[in-house]
Amino acid sequence: MSSLDRVKEIAEKIKSMEIRGAANIGRAAARALMYYAEDFDGNFVEEFMDGVTEARKILESTRPSAVTLFNAIRYVFKRMEGRDVNSLRDSVIKAAKQFIENSEKAIERIGRFGAERIPPNSTVMTHCNSSAALGAIITAHLQGKDIEVIATETRPWYQGHITVKRLAEEGIPVTLIVDSAMRYFMKDVDIVMVGADTVASNGAVINKIGTSLMALCAHEARVPFIVCAETYKFSPETVIGKLVKIEERDVREVADPKEFSGVKIRNPVFDATPPEYIDAIITEKGVISPYLAYEIIKEEFGVSL
Amino acid sequence: MSSLDRVKEIAEKIKSMEIRGAANIGRAAARALMYYAEDFDGNFVEEFMDGVTEARKILESTRPSAVTLFNAIRYVFKRMEGRDVNSLRDSVIKAAKQFIENSEKAIERIGRFGAERIPPNSTVMTHCNSSAALGAIITAHLQGKDIEVIATETRPWYQGHITVKRLAEEGIPVTLIVDSAMRYFMKDVDIVMVGADTVASNGAVINKIGTSLMALCAHEARVPFIVCAETYKFSPETVIGKLVKIEERDVREVADPKEFSGVKIRNPVFDATPPEYIDAIITEKGVISPYLAYEIIKEEFGVSL
Amino acid sequence: MSSLDRVKEIAEKIKSMEIRGAANIGRAAARALMYYAEDFDGNFVEEFMDGVTEARKILESTRPSAVTLFNAIRYVFKRMEGRDVNSLRDSVIKAAKQFIENSEKAIERIGRFGAERIPPNSTVMTHCNSSAALGAIITAHLQGKDIEVIATETRPWYQGHITVKRLAEEGIPVTLIVDSAMRYFMKDVDIVMVGADTVASNGAVINKIGTSLMALCAHEARVPFIVCAETYKFSPETVIGKLVKIEERDVREVADPKEFSGVKIRNPVFDATPPEYIDAIITEKGVISPYLAYEIIKEEFGVSL
Amino acid sequence: MSSLDRVKEIAEKIKSMEIRGAANIGRAAARALMYYAEDFDGNFVEEFMDGVTEARKILESTRPSAVTLFNAIRYVFKRMEGRDVNSLRDSVIKAAKQFIENSEKAIERIGRFGAERIPPNSTVMTHCNSSAALGAIITAHLQGKDIEVIATETRPWYQGHITVKRLAEEGIPVTLIVDSAMRYFMKDVDIVMVGADTVASNGAVINKIGTSLMALCAHEARVPFIVCAETYKFSPETVIGKLVKIEERDVREVADPKEFSGVKIRNPVFDATPPEYIDAIITEKGVISPYLAYEIIKEEFGVSL
Amino acid sequence: MSSLDRVKEIAEKIKSMEIRGAANIGRAAARALMYYAEDFDGNFVEEFMDGVTEARKILESTRPSAVTLFNAIRYVFKRMEGRDVNSLRDSVIKAAKQFIENSEKAIERIGRFGAERIPPNSTVMTHCNSSAALGAIITAHLQGKDIEVIATETRPWYQGHITVKRLAEEGIPVTLIVDSAMRYFMKDVDIVMVGADTVASNGAVINKIGTSLMALCAHEARVPFIVCAETYKFSPETVIGKLVKIEERDVREVADPKEFSGVKIRNPVFDATPPEYIDAIITEKGVISPYLAYEIIKEEFGVSL
Amino acid sequence: MSSLDRVKEIAEKIKSMEIRGAANIGRAAARALMYYAEDFDGNFVEEFMDGVTEARKILESTRPSAVTLFNAIRYVFKRMEGRDVNSLRDSVIKAAKQFIENSEKAIERIGRFGAERIPPNSTVMTHCNSSAALGAIITAHLQGKDIEVIATETRPWYQGHITVKRLAEEGIPVTLIVDSAMRYFMKDVDIVMVGADTVASNGAVINKIGTSLMALCAHEARVPFIVCAETYKFSPETVIGKLVKIEERDVREVADPKEFSGVKIRNPVFDATPPEYIDAIITEKGVISPYLAYEIIKEEFGVSL
Repeated sequence: MSSLDRVKEIAEKIKSMEIRGAANIGRAAARALMYYAEDFDGNFVEEFMDGVTEARKILESTRPSAVTLFNAIRYVFKRMEGRDVNSLRDSVIKAAKQFIENSEKAIERIGRFGAERIPPNSTVMTHCNSSAALGAIITAHLQGKDIEVIATETRPWYQGHITVKRLAEEGIPVTLIVDSAMRYFMKDVDIVMVGADTVASNGAVINKIGTSLMALCAHEARVPFIVCAETYKFSPETVIGKLVKIEERDVREVADPKEFSGVKIRNPVFDATPPEYIDAIITEKGVISPYLAYEIIKEEFGVSL
Repeated sequence: MSSLDRVKEIAEKIKSMEIRGAANIGRAAARALMYYAEDFDGNFVEEFMDGVTEARKILESTRPSAVTLFNAIRYVFKRMEGRDVNSLRDSVIKAAKQFIENSEKAIERIGRFGAERIPPNSTVMTHCNSSAALGAIITAHLQGKDIEVIATETRPWYQGHITVKRLAEEGIPVTLIVDSAMRYFMKDVDIVMVGADTVASNGAVINKIGTSLMALCAHEARVPFIVCAETYKFSPETVIGKLVKIEERDVREVADPKEFSGVKIRNPVFDATPPEYIDAIITEKGVISPYLAYEIIKEEFGVSL
Repeated sequence: MSSLDRVKEIAEKIKSMEIRGAANIGRAAARALMYYAEDFDGNFVEEFMDGVTEARKILESTRPSAVTLFNAIRYVFKRMEGRDVNSLRDSVIKAAKQFIENSEKAIERIGRFGAERIPPNSTVMTHCNSSAALGAIITAHLQGKDIEVIATETRPWYQGHITVKRLAEEGIPVTLIVDSAMRYFMKDVDIVMVGADTVASNGAVINKIGTSLMALCAHEARVPFIVCAETYKFSPETVIGKLVKIEERDVREVADPKEFSGVKIRNPVFDATPPEYIDAIITEKGVISPYLAYEIIKEEFGVSL
Repeated sequence: MSSLDRVKEIAEKIKSMEIRGAANIGRAAARALMYYAEDFDGNFVEEFMDGVTEARKILESTRPSAVTLFNAIRYVFKRMEGRDVNSLRDSVIKAAKQFIENSEKAIERIGRFGAERIPPNSTVMTHCNSSAALGAIITAHLQGKDIEVIATETRPWYQGHITVKRLAEEGIPVTLIVDSAMRYFMKDVDIVMVGADTVASNGAVINKIGTSLMALCAHEARVPFIVCAETYKFSPETVIGKLVKIEERDVREVADPKEFSGVKIRNPVFDATPPEYIDAIITEKGVISPYLAYEIIKEEFGVSL
Repeated sequence: MSSLDRVKEIAEKIKSMEIRGAANIGRAAARALMYYAEDFDGNFVEEFMDGVTEARKILESTRPSAVTLFNAIRYVFKRMEGRDVNSLRDSVIKAAKQFIENSEKAIERIGRFGAERIPPNSTVMTHCNSSAALGAIITAHLQGKDIEVIATETRPWYQGHITVKRLAEEGIPVTLIVDSAMRYFMKDVDIVMVGADTVASNGAVINKIGTSLMALCAHEARVPFIVCAETYKFSPETVIGKLVKIEERDVREVADPKEFSGVKIRNPVFDATPPEYIDAIITEKGVISPYLAYEIIKEEFGVSL
Repeated sequence: MSSLDRVKEIAEKIKSMEIRGAANIGRAAARALMYYAEDFDGNFVEEFMDGVTEARKILESTRPSAVTLFNAIRYVFKRMEGRDVNSLRDSVIKAAKQFIENSEKAIERIGRFGAERIPPNSTVMTHCNSSAALGAIITAHLQGKDIEVIATETRPWYQGHITVKRLAEEGIPVTLIVDSAMRYFMKDVDIVMVGADTVASNGAVINKIGTSLMALCAHEARVPFIVCAETYKFSPETVIGKLVKIEERDVREVADPKEFSGVKIRNPVFDATPPEYIDAIITEKGVISPYLAYEIIKEEFGVSL
């Protein structure tokens, strides 16, 4: 069996969407590199390096805009070291396992750390549908803290509907509102908790459209605004100045263009929340200031300039 | 014919919604008082006063929360004066005609004044569907200024859909966005123009839910935030401390409660924008600071403490 | 009896502190001018004018820094008019009675208007001991609104002790805190209500030391900051640029200088809250923006430049 | 002699710049209307009205962008009243004299009121060369207050040079700095005092380029920012929405375009300071909040919509 | 002698308050671990590890809420390493000595670094009684800089009294004020310097009640707000989301509850200053931004998630 | 040849200004240490250390206030290590080469990273004449992005003239304005990019007078404010509390004192921009938050307390 066989198999599954979800994709990529190392049976360092570089290319080409995919690979490469094949192999396997384990523990840890920040008898506001943020809220609820949640519907996809159903299932009192009512309700809120799509190297958080609006409102009312984000959401690309591209999706999610002749419709999916409106980012490595994003990136994935 | 016959007729039409829309209701109430004065055929001041007070009661009972209705009546009563029936009658007729005329001219004037504030080659953002604000935008367009508009859809009623269609009909380039994208697009906006439901005596503006959010965003980005409001939207009740009650409407406008068991849904219709986020209110009496609301109320409707 | 006898009598009582308290002093001065007009038995306008000017001087010399004293006199003089003694006399008596009546009603009205601003189930914070602010709180309580109060002790005089005792007597749940804890508790507060010593023509409010600190904290947390102030607290002197002098009192109120050799102690009694931190001033003439102070002064007391 | 002869004479002098300076032009226009009234020898109201309207046209055509010219004429017309020629004539003469007298006293009064606002032992910052602001500073100095001034050079015209020389002549310690050093020195400043070119109806102040920058810096450092402005600087045009046009002058004042091929040079003369950065406007009618601009305009010049 | 004898002895003294003060407790704990290592006479790694873990438990149980105690132990454990008893022993001894030495030098260093930040001829404001902040002030004074201090009395314990006496002894001009006068005097202040009880991982500083109020005032007036804090005040617990618990002490420190029947009294000892109001934290490792707190914790004490 | 000959030669050239410019001086100092190591022909570590210390002294005495000079030396010393002469020599040579190479690449990298941050079709504002900032702008232009630049003249030296000429040569549309017009034009700006003279350990940026003013304006208008700074501009001295001394230059650059008798002229060259107004610092090591300055200093140059 060639040492790239299992890599290609996984790459195929990522491409075909059999493997999907940010965390799953990241772990699959790490596993692929681990398989490569396990399956490698050559004797020469150069050969090993050529192969692993080839594996990287195969994997990166599957989903060129998935931050987690690239971060998983960067994580392993940063920790690959040794002067002989054995050391290299061991370091790759160890790093891949570490990435997978960290990733698996990340949501649980963020939930645990985040729950600590939610005071008893408090009202939490959230936007969209973040499993990290919901993890913190549900953990706090399970700890017996008496909490309520206010959740926005999150146009145009109404992910807020998923959020409120999930929380109601847990028995947490939850209120659904339209997005534009967030300032109206903010005065009754004790803490805001949201997720993140990407964290930039200067601490800005890219997340579902409307997140920066909620951060602004929270800041205006002295309400702590907390972002829950696994470290593999931190973007090494932004270190070298790349701006996170804000995707615009099908305008039919907003309104049917046929009914609106002469009208342009736009549907940006994310916006950027500046770090001065973020009181803390909760990662699986602990509660940090958003301004430390660069340090996290450097430590986890390395910075190649 | 009793002098109250025509008053009752109009009252009936207001009640039955045959007469509706803030401006129409106000003018109808003024007209009713004018009819009363015209039809009055007694000789005694006391008799006149009893009748006009009765007319007031009849009219006020039709729609107890319509600011314009009350303001029209206050406007006439404030100007009613004289020591004999003739003077009283004349003053009532004159004041009622004045109110009607002012009201008819108000939207046109606000459009004219507002258009002056829109710079050539600029992008205007608006929320909901305000005829006064649209008047200003369309007037500016007709003056040959090259302008674009960004309009929010305005959940839950999507009044933004009416706005964009109206503007497209006029040939004005217009973009429709979800409400939560307002901060994302604010950096490209030169001026925000919205309407008002009610203006409070300390200058706060009550308007469609989401308005205060847009004001906050505009303030953050140094974009002028302009409110278009006829003076009969200014609330004398707030002078004596009354808070404008924020109506909550049928939650089914937000989501079907049957699909969301265990979830509370809330649907407040308005929010309050503090005066520090409002650069000017354009009334038919000119461009003023919101902080002058009390003066406008005192002058137009009198203050009864 | 000379027409100045009763004026002198009252002046004596003001001087000797038999008559004291801002409102009492103002009413006494108005009453003195009324007595002068009643007792005047001359025939010539000039004579009347000389006398009333003399009365003014006598009264003003009793407490040269009492804003209310000067405002009561200004109020009457502004309304004194006529070409003969009878008209002058009548106008003085009428104006004096009006001032007295307004002043008597002011606290009651402010209480009524202010109570409207306090939402049900809310927490009010207050500083020092203002009868106007307490009036509003107690009125809201008597209306059956379920409210709580947080009051600062108000060093160095501990007037907060009087406040909490008064509120406890009314059966209102009240919490006493040290002054420096105001920011700590502000996040649980729905509205701040304080009194005023003096209101300046640009809208700044001079009140007990620490008031501006509380306004700053309220502003930071989007908590409405409301000042309760009778119109006779508005200072005509500030119209011509005079700065309200901040009195510094006996330093022994702060600490015993003998125990602190080498240490300077300072004890300013008031500070100035800028109008941008004040959401509304509640006067007996209604709820206004602080920025209208000049209009109030002009209307009530006239402006002599 | 025709009743328009002297009007035409004055108009000629305004046009030819023999009469210049905002205050002088205003007073000349008022005087021309006074002459018209004095010289009118007809008997019919209609005739008088035709003539005075003609006079207005003649005067207004001399300098179509001089705010003071228009305000002087508005001032007189607002006060013109009567049913016969004599009353009309008298009212015009009285109003014209009043305007002239007010205008003459305005600078002196503003100096007096402004001096009160300058604390002893303080540092004042100023920009450009405002006679009203300098009046206040010099008056404070003559009152024996120990003050220092920091003045910007005010590119591109260096009017700051005139300012520092004038203050040095008065024996006031004064420091000259480049414009961009204003934030560096702001931390040592106790109060900022500047003049105004025009005041808009919502309270914005149009003044020499850089004024809004100084206001922003003062606001950032909690330094009071005071504008000295005669009421005839308040613009009635802005009441109906007109934006004050910011003049751009000869770019050679900035740099020689011949030396900068391929470079565009721009030279706007004024900028607009928003009212939230202005603590007070000192007018000859007293110290007011900028937000009262509309009231001043209405009272002084009337509002024609 | 058992290797835990001296550990127990020290633990006893900490418990009995014979050893007290944050710095002393920390050093004692480090010393106890050093003694353990010195006294250990076993041969097996496991035995050593069991003993040192036991020592940790004994020490931690003495004062479960003392940040320094826990940090001293964490400091040593983080640096304990080796595969045999000798290496382990050496590393513990070395780390313990290092902690003790660092701690001893910390105050001196902070004083030295802090003094650099105090400009000549300046006024410093401080709150409560921080030896690190006083160190900086006194060092600046000894360097011949001409400085003044304004100190709050710091209710309810009046620690400000100790501060002013200490500064007066050094010959530094110092003014004592009530806490609520801090905003009144802030306009004359050049720099604020305070201590810290605990620093959280996102940069918030927990310190004496009123500190956050002073930070807010300083921020409003563009006055640098500097915190002096030894690194052993940085809390590893906050990394995993723990909120620093704000202790509430005996309410009799505020007022005698017997005299205030029906009144609740509350006495929180600390408040939290958000990092955006803190210009720098001066630690013995240098002047840092508060946002680097997590990095300091990670480096000094390690992060166990 | 003595191992210090070439060091002295270079020192001489630095002193005599033959070598000048921040980057050149830094590289020359690194090269001098490299020469020392190359030329060293002794056998003893102590001898090597004595010599290199002597070399340091010689170099540091040439320009005692040049940050880059000191940083180059610190950079090499931090990386000097080894127990024998060969290792020491090698480490010095390696570190010196690294510093030189990094420095040479820094401007190119910053240009590349910075260009990424400039959006297509945008307007960039800049101040003074920063080669790093211009590098980013020109790189963006060469990438085909359609950009415009607004540049201030930068009194008193008019370095803005150099900037606009340079940009015009590149064919970039550029507008020259006076410094005080920066707020007027800010509303049309998409991003601000400036250089830095020094970066302090808490993230404050010291740069040409007026930079902090531009940052304040950008912040007010939600315009990203980006600083381009090579890491050798970060000041280790500020870690131990040293304030960057703001140089004041010859006042004749501002105005001729002879023409201004009685007037003080001041000419500070730099001002300090607080980190809260800086969205990112672009260094050759990537895009970072200004708050990470301390980490950069520690990593690059070490911190000696």
